[in-house]
Amino acid sequence: MRVAVLSGGVGGARFLRGLVDVLDPARVTAIVNVGDDLEVLGLAVSPDLDSVLYALAGIADEERGWGRADETWSALATVQALGGEDWFRLGDRDLGLHLVRSDALRAGEPLSAVTARLTAALGIDCTILPATDDRLRTWVDTPNGSFEFQHWFVARGHRDPVDRVRFEGAAAARPAPGVLEALHEAELLLIAPSNPFVSIGPILAVERIRAALERRRVPCVAVSPLIGGRAVKGPAALMLSRLEGGTSAAQVAQCYPGLIDALVIDEEDAADADAVSELGVRPIVTRTLMRDAAARRALAEAALSAVAIA
Amino acid sequence: MRVAVLSGGVGGARFLRGLVDVLDPARVTAIVNVGDDLEVLGLAVSPDLDSVLYALAGIADEERGWGRADETWSALATVQALGGEDWFRLGDRDLGLHLVRSDALRAGEPLSAVTARLTAALGIDCTILPATDDRLRTWVDTPNGSFEFQHWFVARGHRDPVDRVRFEGAAAARPAPGVLEALHEAELLLIAPSNPFVSIGPILAVERIRAALERRRVPCVAVSPLIGGRAVKGPAALMLSRLEGGTSAAQVAQCYPGLIDALVIDEEDAADADAVSELGVRPIVTRTLMRDAAARRALAEAALSAVAIA
Repeated sequence: MRVAVLSGGVGGARFLRGLVDVLDPARVTAIVNVGDDLEVLGLAVSPDLDSVLYALAGIADEERGWGRADETWSALATVQALGGEDWFRLGDRDLGLHLVRSDALRAGEPLSAVTARLTAALGIDCTILPATDDRLRTWVDTPNGSFEFQHWFVARGHRDPVDRVRFEGAAAARPAPGVLEALHEAELLLIAPSNPFVSIGPILAVERIRAALERRRVPCVAVSPLIGGRAVKGPAALMLSRLEGGTSAAQVAQCYPGLIDALVIDEEDAADADAVSELGVRPIVTRTLMRDAAARRALAEAALSAVAIA
Repeated sequence: MRVAVLSGGVGGARFLRGLVDVLDPARVTAIVNVGDDLEVLGLAVSPDLDSVLYALAGIADEERGWGRADETWSALATVQALGGEDWFRLGDRDLGLHLVRSDALRAGEPLSAVTARLTAALGIDCTILPATDDRLRTWVDTPNGSFEFQHWFVARGHRDPVDRVRFEGAAAARPAPGVLEALHEAELLLIAPSNPFVSIGPILAVERIRAALERRRVPCVAVSPLIGGRAVKGPAALMLSRLEGGTSAAQVAQCYPGLIDALVIDEEDAADADAVSELGVRPIVTRTLMRDAAARRALAEAALSAVAIA
């Protein structure tokens, strides 16, 4: 079975690890958010692509939850000592990747091509695509001003409540090469347990990707990022509450109107199942916390079980 | 006493350390070669400025002879693993400086201004100036082709014999702000024990710097980089042999025609003293190997003693 997965960073990356454990990795294509990409110290950083690359290569730092294992921090210490831009935490091993990618982008290589090279160099067997090679940037409007995503998320500690999420460049952004093909050839479309607004939202803001999902002829299954109405990590619950009026699984389903056929929800949110059904979305109740490889595989299998609903 | 010192990298950096030990550092201005600057992985690297900064900040790696002490190599290991540009050895701490400098240069800050900030951030009390803020690049013509300096020196291991040294951009290069003032205000001009062709040559290729030395009203003293007709480090002797016809102290003096009044030469080259005198240059014979702080200070004092010859 071929699957295409829309994915954000850490949660999506863990979900992908489970998928490639239960499917032939060559049949898995990850279509990854680039809305929170940024330039730091002149380097092109793609946090979600990196989280996916590191997770699938088995070199992610599991405890910290981002970046690389066995990381060192010498360069950033120097940057700090010299008064440089140090708000975004770049480890040395991580920096090596940003240097290679930035160099290639400056030489005119598209992000998708660089990502394919990095994927191969890291020994990853599935396909990892940026949603778009074009510039697309997520902005959040808050009562305290508008901020580029990483400035809000990292520099401001995502404390400002979000009134609106915008995607600069989305109107002109084309799907990266391979994205539409992957969506058309998949027998199952998946939306990873990532933040619907700032991880999946930027992918769906690319008009031709959203259209491909709307016109799908195969099931699309999202995995809720909530457990007991709370996000495992990050601001998803706060944003759902403010932007969708609540943190139940039904509010997650509402983020994907006309786009999903089933929603995998956690056992702790089982009471939301009826409300999800009423939206025309089939609830699939299971354990969703990906605490280890077995849990990741079980979640992947629960999502894949939905292929039968078409 | 105010001094201005033309300096290359490692040897010049050691000489400067001796000078600031015996003089008020506020009265020392280093005018540093930028001909072997390069771009690596999109970063602006200034090897000679860095050697001087690291030496004067006391953070240079003394054993390796270049780069920073307590260095880590995580970023370069990643670059290698990902198939990136890895021929130029960039340590992680070193990278931090290149990131800060490259970011500032991209933002339009001149190299001299960035260097002043780095000098201050590293707690260095003397003045460090690039010879020019303009682009000036050293090329070597060899029987095997023409190469940018670092490609010849590092990537090709400086094995190709050099027929000619050229300085791309020199005709248009202006002295960096402060350079001419330092040369005019100095009571003694010094040329560090650096390679005359590829370390001092690019500085003198800036026409107004050469003219300032030619029209000097104070003594100019060079320190020979040779000991017993051999270079302590690097290709100086080979280049002298091929380009000046020999490796005696007289050949070093010939590299600075009309530019120096005295030449500090090593005891092992004492037999060359007469030949140096015949060129109208006063030989100052002393021990020149800067193996420790005391030796560096002694060499600085020997060079400073020449102030009396005016």
